[in-house]
Amino acid sequence: MKLVQFEGCSFVSGGVTAPKGFKASGIRCGIREGKTKKDIGLIAAERPVPAAAVYTQNKVKGAPIFVTKEHLANGYAQAVIVNSGIANTCCADGIDKANAMCQITAGALDITADDIIVASTGVIGQPLPIEPVENGMPQLVKELSADGGHSFAEAIMTTDTVSKEVAVEFELGGVKARIGGCAKGSGMIHPNMATMLSFLTTDVDITPELLQTALSAVVADTFNMVSVDGDTSTNDTCAIMASGEAGNKKITAQDGDFEVFVNALYAVLMNISRMIAADGEGATRLLECVVTGGNSVEQAKACAKSIICSSLMKAAIFGADANWGRALCAIGYAPVDVDVDKVEMSFASEAGCILVCENGAGVPFSEETAKEILLKDEVKILIDLHDGEAAAVAWGCDLTYDYVKINGDYRS
Amino acid sequence: MKLVQFEGCSFVSGGVTAPKGFKASGIRCGIREGKTKKDIGLIAAERPVPAAAVYTQNKVKGAPIFVTKEHLANGYAQAVIVNSGIANTCCADGIDKANAMCQITAGALDITADDIIVASTGVIGQPLPIEPVENGMPQLVKELSADGGHSFAEAIMTTDTVSKEVAVEFELGGVKARIGGCAKGSGMIHPNMATMLSFLTTDVDITPELLQTALSAVVADTFNMVSVDGDTSTNDTCAIMASGEAGNKKITAQDGDFEVFVNALYAVLMNISRMIAADGEGATRLLECVVTGGNSVEQAKACAKSIICSSLMKAAIFGADANWGRALCAIGYAPVDVDVDKVEMSFASEAGCILVCENGAGVPFSEETAKEILLKDEVKILIDLHDGEAAAVAWGCDLTYDYVKINGDYRS
Repeated sequence: MKLVQFEGCSFVSGGVTAPKGFKASGIRCGIREGKTKKDIGLIAAERPVPAAAVYTQNKVKGAPIFVTKEHLANGYAQAVIVNSGIANTCCADGIDKANAMCQITAGALDITADDIIVASTGVIGQPLPIEPVENGMPQLVKELSADGGHSFAEAIMTTDTVSKEVAVEFELGGVKARIGGCAKGSGMIHPNMATMLSFLTTDVDITPELLQTALSAVVADTFNMVSVDGDTSTNDTCAIMASGEAGNKKITAQDGDFEVFVNALYAVLMNISRMIAADGEGATRLLECVVTGGNSVEQAKACAKSIICSSLMKAAIFGADANWGRALCAIGYAPVDVDVDKVEMSFASEAGCILVCENGAGVPFSEETAKEILLKDEVKILIDLHDGEAAAVAWGCDLTYDYVKINGDYRS
Repeated sequence: MKLVQFEGCSFVSGGVTAPKGFKASGIRCGIREGKTKKDIGLIAAERPVPAAAVYTQNKVKGAPIFVTKEHLANGYAQAVIVNSGIANTCCADGIDKANAMCQITAGALDITADDIIVASTGVIGQPLPIEPVENGMPQLVKELSADGGHSFAEAIMTTDTVSKEVAVEFELGGVKARIGGCAKGSGMIHPNMATMLSFLTTDVDITPELLQTALSAVVADTFNMVSVDGDTSTNDTCAIMASGEAGNKKITAQDGDFEVFVNALYAVLMNISRMIAADGEGATRLLECVVTGGNSVEQAKACAKSIICSSLMKAAIFGADANWGRALCAIGYAPVDVDVDKVEMSFASEAGCILVCENGAGVPFSEETAKEILLKDEVKILIDLHDGEAAAVAWGCDLTYDYVKINGDYRS
């Protein structure tokens, strides 16, 4: 899919290894039998660097989250170790296994286990085998390289059909700086604080506190506005590490440089969000809902999210059916006050834009033109609440036969 | 499907015409071109009788709801007029059309329009044609009969594959009394106050106030615990009329007779709820989630509903995949506090019962036995929160290819 451009940011290749100071790798170690894809990934910095993360708000949390939170308490990390295939969640020995993953990694890298971010994704409730991690670690470390970002991105995929990587270069206080990121996520995607798994790197010099502030703010407007199926995962984690090697004057306050960094981070996370939604399990279309005219950002966000979460709306988009009443219905049950009699709605894509509803009631429109618009890969639902100046965007996808197929048979 | 039996209640045929004092009919008048099914239904009592109703909490409400609310303000009604095919919602002239339906009906029955309950179901946002209603009314009135309950139930169906009717007979203060009911509802089913459309009759003598109290209480534990797709409709209405012809001593207080009536009403609504869930759009299995050991009914209800609403759990049930981690995940994001480390879970059906999770973690179980259990038409997920004595039940269905098919192409 095409990347959305942002002024001052140019896209570069390399994913998490695009910024200076990071190596990465990804291999198959054999977490689950009968599979062939890469299943373990590693990112390593040259020393402990400022790091921040956000996590799922599900009360059922994967064991790695507890371990990572503890390790990030001091605001620094040196490596990320992630496996796919098994989530290490809802297992009595989960914490032990997550700690073991850190210890094995620390031993191989000759660093301290407390500086390691650990994450897992896959089936819930099955025990994580540690032997494959142990056996695969020497090769994983050996393959660490400054262009290993793509291998890492592949290693963390589960039902994803494509890897999701974005990196940008931008100018910060006179020097070139970069942010790189990747994510996995295709099902059980309804992030509430972070997405499934996303790992970001930057060579910007910034304090751990401001790194966390920037990450939390940008995630709220990007990953937290994505939904594939309304299911908030137990393992959502988004972590960032900042090597400081760009050579910029260290960011120590929410000044102009901080703003530049936040904007570049938004460029990366917004594009990754669109990639996750477009690659939603079984999806054939990216659905973007833009709500304007809200009386608050919360109101606009709630309406946008309610629409992209509606199974009926999602199925209608799959059928390229301009059934706008379902979107209005979803606004009606969104958990915020809305004057539904003011709502205006249009469908848009590269094929054009068509008005379907004004003052909360339908207007005559060409079903044929609407169908042409909705048959494109990227479809926008544009809502104007006519109630203020606030706006929000949410990303989702259509609901298809393949979503059912993938999830009726995920574990086999 | 088999009805769930209740002590003191025997099932009888006839639906809404099972109780004394009601006639009903259903015909095709031609609301939507190109269709062949019945699309308008009428229930008539012999005089204005106590009546009560509950409605959707969606902020977008169908026009008929505003009119019905006004007509029921005095607690009495004499007839119900309902069309299927077009929802008469989000149209600028909706209220006028709903009033017109009442006036046409009132004229034909020679009663006052204010005593008429009006409802519509179908596509949102398309104008309701009034000519077919006008033209069809003479035949609709002519066909009114004391065994017309089934015709009425057929007339209100949309994507339903079967009509949904239940009637019970029970003893009340020494006399035989009856409650009859029917409902339509297959998609856009996530009632929040009432289900899509359900019409109930009884020959019990009861005040309008206590009729409303009984209806609201029973709906909260039955229709409001059903979800097919998480979409709360704009037109949900559940109305009941009480002819008083059973000859019981009039119920004027929340005494023993009131309890008997509430229990019989529960028997009807609980069975209709199961029918709606089992006939969810595209469904192949009825999913019943029973939560016990809750610290409050609210907590138990929230957990039960979260599980039956999870797209991932619903798809797993379609695949007969004992992926219990998805149910635990859904408890984790339910909007209530839960000590997830105490949760116990089993799957059950007529093929047996199997424990899959204890203390919030998986236990070894036979996947083969689990699959046999999940392949049955009615599947139960049994949750014990081990946190108190409160319990709740929720009903849903699996998510299938056909749900997508039906909703990708509903309007054509």
